[in-house]
Amino acid sequence: MMSWILAQAKVYIDDAFHDGYVKMNGSMIEEVGKGLPHVGPDDEVWNVRGAFVLPGLVNTHNHTPMTLLRGLGEGEPLKRWLEDVMWPREAMLSEEDVYWGTLLAQAEMIESGTTTFLDMYDRLHVIFEAVRLSGMRAVLARGMIGSEDPSVEAAKLKEAEDVSRRYHGALSGRITMMISPHGAYTCSSAFLKEIIELSRALSLPVTTHLAETRQELLTVKKREAMETIPYLEALGLFERPLLVAHAVHLSERDRETLARYDVRISHNPVSNLKLGSGIAPIPDLIRRGLTISLGTDGAASNNNYDLFEEMRMAALLHKGKEEDATLIHPNEALRMATAAGARALFLEHVIGKLAKGYRADLIIVRSDGLPYVPAHDDVANLVYNGRGSDVLGTIVDGRLLYWKGEHLTLDTERIRYEARLRAKRLA
Amino acid sequence: MMSWILAQAKVYIDDAFHDGYVKMNGSMIEEVGKGLPHVGPDDEVWNVRGAFVLPGLVNTHNHTPMTLLRGLGEGEPLKRWLEDVMWPREAMLSEEDVYWGTLLAQAEMIESGTTTFLDMYDRLHVIFEAVRLSGMRAVLARGMIGSEDPSVEAAKLKEAEDVSRRYHGALSGRITMMISPHGAYTCSSAFLKEIIELSRALSLPVTTHLAETRQELLTVKKREAMETIPYLEALGLFERPLLVAHAVHLSERDRETLARYDVRISHNPVSNLKLGSGIAPIPDLIRRGLTISLGTDGAASNNNYDLFEEMRMAALLHKGKEEDATLIHPNEALRMATAAGARALFLEHVIGKLAKGYRADLIIVRSDGLPYVPAHDDVANLVYNGRGSDVLGTIVDGRLLYWKGEHLTLDTERIRYEARLRAKRLA
Repeated sequence: MMSWILAQAKVYIDDAFHDGYVKMNGSMIEEVGKGLPHVGPDDEVWNVRGAFVLPGLVNTHNHTPMTLLRGLGEGEPLKRWLEDVMWPREAMLSEEDVYWGTLLAQAEMIESGTTTFLDMYDRLHVIFEAVRLSGMRAVLARGMIGSEDPSVEAAKLKEAEDVSRRYHGALSGRITMMISPHGAYTCSSAFLKEIIELSRALSLPVTTHLAETRQELLTVKKREAMETIPYLEALGLFERPLLVAHAVHLSERDRETLARYDVRISHNPVSNLKLGSGIAPIPDLIRRGLTISLGTDGAASNNNYDLFEEMRMAALLHKGKEEDATLIHPNEALRMATAAGARALFLEHVIGKLAKGYRADLIIVRSDGLPYVPAHDDVANLVYNGRGSDVLGTIVDGRLLYWKGEHLTLDTERIRYEARLRAKRLA
Repeated sequence: MMSWILAQAKVYIDDAFHDGYVKMNGSMIEEVGKGLPHVGPDDEVWNVRGAFVLPGLVNTHNHTPMTLLRGLGEGEPLKRWLEDVMWPREAMLSEEDVYWGTLLAQAEMIESGTTTFLDMYDRLHVIFEAVRLSGMRAVLARGMIGSEDPSVEAAKLKEAEDVSRRYHGALSGRITMMISPHGAYTCSSAFLKEIIELSRALSLPVTTHLAETRQELLTVKKREAMETIPYLEALGLFERPLLVAHAVHLSERDRETLARYDVRISHNPVSNLKLGSGIAPIPDLIRRGLTISLGTDGAASNNNYDLFEEMRMAALLHKGKEEDATLIHPNEALRMATAAGARALFLEHVIGKLAKGYRADLIIVRSDGLPYVPAHDDVANLVYNGRGSDVLGTIVDGRLLYWKGEHLTLDTERIRYEARLRAKRLA
């Protein structure tokens, strides 16, 4: 069978770039090697002329339809931004808005090197259709906020169950599902228990917001007369496979608990800074052996989906905060965006690594821009100087989604037009 | 006389973008306005189709020849990185290395929208020739580190005086000079006094490193039995027009002193993070009325010259550190990179603003990339989502240096070749 070979590349193997090649067959990686490949008579060979080839980036926390709202309420304090600017407008989003908002986000992700994203939102049937079209890999989670009306909560649970059953493993495995309570402070303990039970019944992992702000921790403490993390432990949440977003405000004991249960972390440094939430204690969590992945969060608090920026921020921020230049080596930051991202999404045997048997999700990044000269340290150049705009090509499941400025699955002119049109109503 | 008009632009006027135009005549801005321009029969009109037009970015702290060293010693603790990696290699830099290193930096700055930079280094005659070629605007300062040999110090002073007399105001005013003691911890008080005296004799401002690390403050305290800033005040440094880089570790009293003397600040957030130096108390310095500009520092501690990244970092970092989303509004960050940069370099009547009578230093930035959609807030889009690679054109003194991927003054193929060649010897 014909293979597709990317040759004369700088290939990311074992935490470093080596001159080599990647051979793909259908949706899978068939072979990765140093030097020159053996080329069969039917193989298609692309000489990428020294470009970097690395696993596609993995964005583990998102609310993609919010892209239509970016730039609204800039500079407002968090509470007013959320309650007066974001929530009323999110309530106005039609299914079509959700569709074009997520497509705008997905186009931006594709052209800046992200191949997999987790989306916590509602109207997942709409987002599913957008993912079908874009060709990306996605983990979808119906985010559930509690309600005083039990029938509303029941309807959300039912919807989460339905979409999970319908979409888990769909599109040749490009879609997997998670179960998602919005947060400890926005769901009652009864609702949380039902959600945990649903995840158990469906054998699906859980994803939720955790310890993003000091305020949410106070809310839970007041309501439950317990700290958030012991409270969630008592509810049994940590017995489920779990990915939490943010993890900014954690006590010593909280960190021990997260480590004991191998909870996966989505570190969202840009969003945490922009919303004034704080700086997550990432170096300490790494020392405890936790899996740290990267997320942009929704574009309204970032304001973009360039995971190179998130990688760089993760590599820089903690060095400065802790006044220690040895923290978060560039390799560590690149792992966060690739292999750790895969593990955070419970896809570590599927993506995140260039090796035989993994899905062919990878990106081709130019290495000839001036910021990549000289090449004393390719990984440092990529992490500290790389920009989403350096991405030449994006491949998911062995399919080329983007190549040198052209989208092969999405009509970006139409997306731009629709997004602008819809944004006017939301302004 | 023929004017050159950029029309159908989003022009940055009074802290916001407006549909309008900029008219240039020779090296000057002749007119800036909203709507459509009056076009004379000999005028050349460029329709920039909705691109942003804003003042060229100003990078107020640099050591450009160090570009050849970026990526060396990544992850080393600061002391070892400096003493074992950087200094021995800087001592190896030949005049040709300095030339090609600074040209690499300047090419990178030009294509990412920087029009003016301050360079603190030695062999300024070489850097001067590179600036002559590149067409950028530059402030050159012969950085002086003290020596136990008085004749070495005397030679440095003589050299600083010579280059200052020779180059101040050269290239039609594109070059101005400053006098530069490296820092309080690397110069004796006798040497500092001589340097201050030189700046007075030449009527030139001073620029120096200040309070970058805790260690340097301890060094001065041990040597002088005084805190650094009271010590420098006693020496009379603050009576000179002064720009200081870093300003990370400052007591309440230090901040008062800096404000009292209207000392200009070069905030280098990326470098301060990367080297583990800390996070400067910028919101407090702004409240005290100080001028905060932005610098990348040398590429070895950044590792690039993209001032959009510095702008974004300044806008994000302090919100997170102080847990307050209202700090450093996007407009404030954009001012830091433009008007405040001009003031920091004592060029506030020359550059940093689009208005009649200012030099025509400006950049044209695409506004049609996906991260700029929707356009709820153009300034927020530019600050949070802008990348150096969005720059379409760069103009200094009314001269186009870069347009849509092509350099008009520099041979980037040659620069790449020379930089790679020279870097090998330095590896």
